[in-house]
Amino acid sequence: MSLQGYKGRLKDILLQANCSVGDDVVVDTDSGIIEGIVMPRYQYGDENNLVIKMKNGYNIGISYERIKGLKLVNKGKEPSFTVPPKPTTKSALPKILILGTGGTIASRIDYRTGGVKAALTSEELYHLVPELSEIADIETKVVFNIYSENMTPKHWSELASAVADGIKRGYDGIVITHGTDTMHYTSAALSFALQGTPIPIALVGSQRSSDRPSSDSAINLIGAVRFASSADASGVFVIMHQGPGDEKLAIHSGVRVRKLHTSRRDAFKSVDTEPLGFIEENKILISKQIAGRGKNVDVRSFNVKNNFSDEVSLLKIYPGFDSSLISKVVDSGAKGLVLEGTGLGHTPSSSFEEIRRAAGKGVIICMTSQCIYGSVRMTVYETGRDLLHIGVIPLGDMLSEVAYAKLSWLLGQGYEKKEVEEMMKSNLVGEIGGRRLLW
Amino acid sequence: MSLQGYKGRLKDILLQANCSVGDDVVVDTDSGIIEGIVMPRYQYGDENNLVIKMKNGYNIGISYERIKGLKLVNKGKEPSFTVPPKPTTKSALPKILILGTGGTIASRIDYRTGGVKAALTSEELYHLVPELSEIADIETKVVFNIYSENMTPKHWSELASAVADGIKRGYDGIVITHGTDTMHYTSAALSFALQGTPIPIALVGSQRSSDRPSSDSAINLIGAVRFASSADASGVFVIMHQGPGDEKLAIHSGVRVRKLHTSRRDAFKSVDTEPLGFIEENKILISKQIAGRGKNVDVRSFNVKNNFSDEVSLLKIYPGFDSSLISKVVDSGAKGLVLEGTGLGHTPSSSFEEIRRAAGKGVIICMTSQCIYGSVRMTVYETGRDLLHIGVIPLGDMLSEVAYAKLSWLLGQGYEKKEVEEMMKSNLVGEIGGRRLLW
Repeated sequence: MSLQGYKGRLKDILLQANCSVGDDVVVDTDSGIIEGIVMPRYQYGDENNLVIKMKNGYNIGISYERIKGLKLVNKGKEPSFTVPPKPTTKSALPKILILGTGGTIASRIDYRTGGVKAALTSEELYHLVPELSEIADIETKVVFNIYSENMTPKHWSELASAVADGIKRGYDGIVITHGTDTMHYTSAALSFALQGTPIPIALVGSQRSSDRPSSDSAINLIGAVRFASSADASGVFVIMHQGPGDEKLAIHSGVRVRKLHTSRRDAFKSVDTEPLGFIEENKILISKQIAGRGKNVDVRSFNVKNNFSDEVSLLKIYPGFDSSLISKVVDSGAKGLVLEGTGLGHTPSSSFEEIRRAAGKGVIICMTSQCIYGSVRMTVYETGRDLLHIGVIPLGDMLSEVAYAKLSWLLGQGYEKKEVEEMMKSNLVGEIGGRRLLW
Repeated sequence: MSLQGYKGRLKDILLQANCSVGDDVVVDTDSGIIEGIVMPRYQYGDENNLVIKMKNGYNIGISYERIKGLKLVNKGKEPSFTVPPKPTTKSALPKILILGTGGTIASRIDYRTGGVKAALTSEELYHLVPELSEIADIETKVVFNIYSENMTPKHWSELASAVADGIKRGYDGIVITHGTDTMHYTSAALSFALQGTPIPIALVGSQRSSDRPSSDSAINLIGAVRFASSADASGVFVIMHQGPGDEKLAIHSGVRVRKLHTSRRDAFKSVDTEPLGFIEENKILISKQIAGRGKNVDVRSFNVKNNFSDEVSLLKIYPGFDSSLISKVVDSGAKGLVLEGTGLGHTPSSSFEEIRRAAGKGVIICMTSQCIYGSVRMTVYETGRDLLHIGVIPLGDMLSEVAYAKLSWLLGQGYEKKEVEEMMKSNLVGEIGGRRLLW
């Protein structure tokens, strides 16, 4: 228990009353007495509100000015939770490393405050999801613990490095638990940084947190561990529900997947292609297009390329697009820019001068389409041809999110401009050219 | 014939040789003789290239520096095209106004240069698509003739005004031909500006230009005219192919539709809802949710609200989002900003200060999701709650493109900030709340 997130004069009031987060309190306010439990505050929350969980279960924010008095009623107790001993796993089981980055998969609820506590050790994981002990001999590591909207290219670097470390230490597969907001950006980034991985790397998330009966977290995690343990596959993948039901999971390519629904359990979809495989009733079916494990590779010599540049921007085009944004992006130091154009890859002609100016300054400008599905084709209309002439790089059917990660990676690798432009147009790890698969 | 698009020294060379676009010429270049037809150039094209259509049908660009000489061989002739007389339409047919804005629907090809010529008169239209004369008594008007990526809020105003004029003049329905790149932005804009229209207004486009055997332009146009003529419907709609085949068209709400493929004929999809109706084998099926025609309305008193603000921006969020863009948007005068967030409506916490600063300056900041499908819900996670506290307006399942048009419209109407914020959250014309329909 602590005063998590409370600052300044509100923190002082709580300290004076000997109150911590989780304690039962009575607050005297200008509109009457409020009883309940002190709730934790979030780092970036506003500093002026005391948040109380009332008996009816609702949270209420009480601003500092309204508080006339505050009294401790009962010190809150940590709910008792004894971590059981790690079950004896069969020594023949595949060795899997689970890397935690945040998100609500594999977590337990503090029922007092409603806060979610991540399951951070393999012991806790086995306890929460006992099936795992039948599938793999698991070790866990928390790389960081953030909401995925706070991921940056720097986090991609760090995460790629942790994965590479796991590859070198000889794990049979690596599972990364990740918030779903930006999981597809991260899967793309890792696909480039970890090219040539001899083992499968599976990103997995959950759309409903573990405290809800409809949670998909255990099933997704079991599927990801099963895939990483036993599939004859190498590369970077995303494992999530295939449909609304629990009976089937999809194995997506890390560079052809996108979050396409805010809340559904089957929010992640392969775009312009089928998933690379499925997990159904404990059976794994994978396409012949997936490369097998690198069986005779000396994993200790695996070479991660984990530098990412943070000098890339992404702008979505719209009618009346403020093209001065392009100069502003360039002036603040961007070396690469992904334009998410309309239709086949277009921007208003009123933006051509700004694009020309950016290109003249050496900025690499790439074009994707906000249509999501289909391919940029910039030779069909004059607008596209003019943009090509200015030097804009057409990216075919590459997703905008993948394009952003790829450009960040290429610029991070220190290639020359010409090389970056050529490589943006080339298919490195399956990011260009959705297609029907062989089974 | 002219020197369309040619400028400067290249234009001088052509003038000296008495050459126009469409003429047969011989060009002496540093790499040999090139014969062919002088092609027109586009306004924003680069000034340094002479474009010649060679005998094999390919176009080649020859830069000024490479030209050693140029000789006229034959003056080109306009292909003969006699516009036939307007067929006698039955006087009982519904009166339809077709407004042209550009795009390649209903056009004919100049087979000499390959250029597309819009069919601008009703006579030409009847000639190209004879079926129309059986359906409606059509008049046409060209409002403007631009690629739809060049649409701006100013064009929305002008177009809404032209539609309102048609409503007042008593047409039974109005069809707008439009480029597909931004047709869904325009349909949203018109939905707000033309609230309460007593007649149906149907936007229609084509994904394949009329010169291709696979063109969808005639079928889409016939469907739109049929719908505008005879459906008991009022409002703003988009009519396009329902699937890849020609047998069925979809009638989409103007505020729940999005271009979701760069090239397919069924690129337009209703999002989080079904289409409002279908056109199949000349029959129109529409949902009970569509309002009927305003039969006892005095159309002359119809009041269009066609002011749009151009002080709105749209920014897509991504990992490592450069939050200084928010200040830059505000500094260049934005009064409204749509953030296309991740997941349930999130931005990195590193952007909170910039968002707070913008909100402090009175900028109206709205949140949609880049997931496309599903609804923004900002009370689920701390990030969302913090953004709400800063004053960000959650827009439910409103599409980003619709949100941009709506905010531009509300600010154009001169409402107070508080009113704009309330109205952004309220459902005005079906833009919030996708649902299953009644038939």
